[in-house]
Amino acid sequence: MPVARRTSRDIRSESRLIVVRALLAAGETTRNELADDTGLSAATVSTVVGDLLKYGIAAETGLLSSGIGRPTTGLRLNADRGLVAGVYVEDRYFQATVFDTSLKRLANVRIRATEPVGTADAVIEWTARILDAALGDAGAAREDLLGVGVLLPGGMQRPVKSAFASDAIWLHLDRLRDRLGLPVVVDNPLKAVATAELWLGAGRRFADLVVVNLGEGVGAGIVQDGAVLRGATGTAGEWGHSLLVFEGRECQCGRRGCVEAYVGVPGIRRTLAETEPGHPIADVQGGKFVEALGEAADAGDAAALAAVDRTAQFLGAALADLVAIVNPEHLALAGWTTFPLGERLLPAVRERVRADAPGDAAAELGIELSRSSGMEGIAAVALERFMRDVGLVTTRVLPAL
Amino acid sequence: MPVARRTSRDIRSESRLIVVRALLAAGETTRNELADDTGLSAATVSTVVGDLLKYGIAAETGLLSSGIGRPTTGLRLNADRGLVAGVYVEDRYFQATVFDTSLKRLANVRIRATEPVGTADAVIEWTARILDAALGDAGAAREDLLGVGVLLPGGMQRPVKSAFASDAIWLHLDRLRDRLGLPVVVDNPLKAVATAELWLGAGRRFADLVVVNLGEGVGAGIVQDGAVLRGATGTAGEWGHSLLVFEGRECQCGRRGCVEAYVGVPGIRRTLAETEPGHPIADVQGGKFVEALGEAADAGDAAALAAVDRTAQFLGAALADLVAIVNPEHLALAGWTTFPLGERLLPAVRERVRADAPGDAAAELGIELSRSSGMEGIAAVALERFMRDVGLVTTRVLPAL
Repeated sequence: MPVARRTSRDIRSESRLIVVRALLAAGETTRNELADDTGLSAATVSTVVGDLLKYGIAAETGLLSSGIGRPTTGLRLNADRGLVAGVYVEDRYFQATVFDTSLKRLANVRIRATEPVGTADAVIEWTARILDAALGDAGAAREDLLGVGVLLPGGMQRPVKSAFASDAIWLHLDRLRDRLGLPVVVDNPLKAVATAELWLGAGRRFADLVVVNLGEGVGAGIVQDGAVLRGATGTAGEWGHSLLVFEGRECQCGRRGCVEAYVGVPGIRRTLAETEPGHPIADVQGGKFVEALGEAADAGDAAALAAVDRTAQFLGAALADLVAIVNPEHLALAGWTTFPLGERLLPAVRERVRADAPGDAAAELGIELSRSSGMEGIAAVALERFMRDVGLVTTRVLPAL
Repeated sequence: MPVARRTSRDIRSESRLIVVRALLAAGETTRNELADDTGLSAATVSTVVGDLLKYGIAAETGLLSSGIGRPTTGLRLNADRGLVAGVYVEDRYFQATVFDTSLKRLANVRIRATEPVGTADAVIEWTARILDAALGDAGAAREDLLGVGVLLPGGMQRPVKSAFASDAIWLHLDRLRDRLGLPVVVDNPLKAVATAELWLGAGRRFADLVVVNLGEGVGAGIVQDGAVLRGATGTAGEWGHSLLVFEGRECQCGRRGCVEAYVGVPGIRRTLAETEPGHPIADVQGGKFVEALGEAADAGDAAALAAVDRTAQFLGAALADLVAIVNPEHLALAGWTTFPLGERLLPAVRERVRADAPGDAAAELGIELSRSSGMEGIAAVALERFMRDVGLVTTRVLPAL
């Protein structure tokens, strides 16, 4: 579609979002510091803070003294304004996390089902139940929530084609909203991790960055000019299903040679099996496999060390493609594989990216581990949605509605 | 760097660029049609047209009658306002094209040197000489030029590291400007082709598109939200140096397995040689090879047909990676390989992209041949630069300065 025009109203709305993000990042701060942090004028900050105070999004925290000059009024997000929650929905795994308005985590509940949850009705029921369980742990109830964000993996599968009932949520969003009695936003975990990195991580320093998520599946969240790239059909960032090897290993998506088939957890397992057929840890299932691999490497197991090194080569080469095509200022590595293996992968990955990226595109590129999570990201989106509902934000096109 | 703020002044500037682009695309038009084409209000169009008339960028063309209602005043770009020129500079190939202000091509001159031009001084001299030759053919002189755009291939090589003197232009831009006595803008051909597609091609319908350039080298120009993506170090779009085959064919860039090593002209030649070693046309040099391959395929030569089909598979798989990562609304194929082979490649390429792209990301994607050229694009950038110099445009960060 053609480029949308911007108005002064959009700019006001954008300034409010920028100040909210700066408040989130800073914890406690002042109007002067907000002007410094955001590059907005003191007058704009003052107007925006006035709006946020009026709607209870921000709160004053009394006088702060720096020891020099007269004390100034402190500001922070108003944690008492309400709660937001994130829910992760997969075919057999559900998780709910409750945050206050400053995105401090209050409670977290996980359930793993033994069988895939088979119908949209069942998914909606599970979602409501796990949300209530997390609210209970936080000593809160649904009426305390400003909104809920739902993380649905599988951006590759558009709603209708998906084999999983969880994806059918896309088709039954109104029913989920009715069942919860709350505003609901939905997004793909890759985009949500990128949102978290943008609001709370490297996005405070860089407007153009990529967050790569490494787990069972792999993918990227691309941030450009301070916004998460979605693409024409919402699948931008499906780097896990770009090629590493033309006509190479079979990928779970049905294509051959995808990056995911080499650096997703099953791909790493296969690399170990190719290095040493019958290696004892090759059968360790799920995320525990990467933990076991990290431990074996720590213990000096040669096959484990070789598999980790080979994985670093695959990963570095595949990340260099992102640098070639998108050329970001910063590359963040997130996801569970990075917890046991991140530090071990990083040196070889950095070297490979620098060697493989075009010219010196990666010479100044920071490649760092990140703790950003999709839950924080989707909670931030739910908060943004609330700000839109009260009229503070007008521009941002929210995912999924 | 952090996101830049926008002001009302920026929006005015952007409206002017939008109207200039609409004028370029339309040829002759009216204020009402401009409002329809751009989505700007009639009042904004009227103000912007007033500005453009005042600076002589647009001109009125007398009364137009549609047969219904009263006649309205016609508008077009003022072709008499001045000329712009594009110069293509390679180590042994120079080309200059002169356009009027409505980007109509007036003259075109090419020179191929037998030896690489060895020093920056010599490059500057050649640039001045070929520009004067093209101006002579157009019956014009340097003082008729509003500006010159220089196309420098090799975005992969940053200035200092390059082995070619032509790239040293980056280091001696002030001297080139002094020698020509004119404003000079410089850009990479991939970005310039994308600019041409944006102003004059599919960019009139889509804000998010990718233009792939297929020649000796290959690469992509990525347009997002109506602007050409440059990236942190100016190398965004170096898709030709993303992977097709991990540890595959050697690429001229020094890495192994790049897309360019399979779908650049030397890559296609190698595919033919692998299909039938010693095939008579495998030795045809330069762009003539793809012409000869097209003719052989037309004549039913089995090896030529197989090489073209294999190339379509490589190209389709590599384009699917762009769809996975960037997820554009439209994909345009440009460059000299597409002249003899485009129609022949297109059906298999479309099929492969649809099969390989994640989910149904390519289901609605248009994949079309494009006649956009870097020369038109760099001339458009030179025109934009002129509009900035007279104060009509403030926002756009121009390439290379």
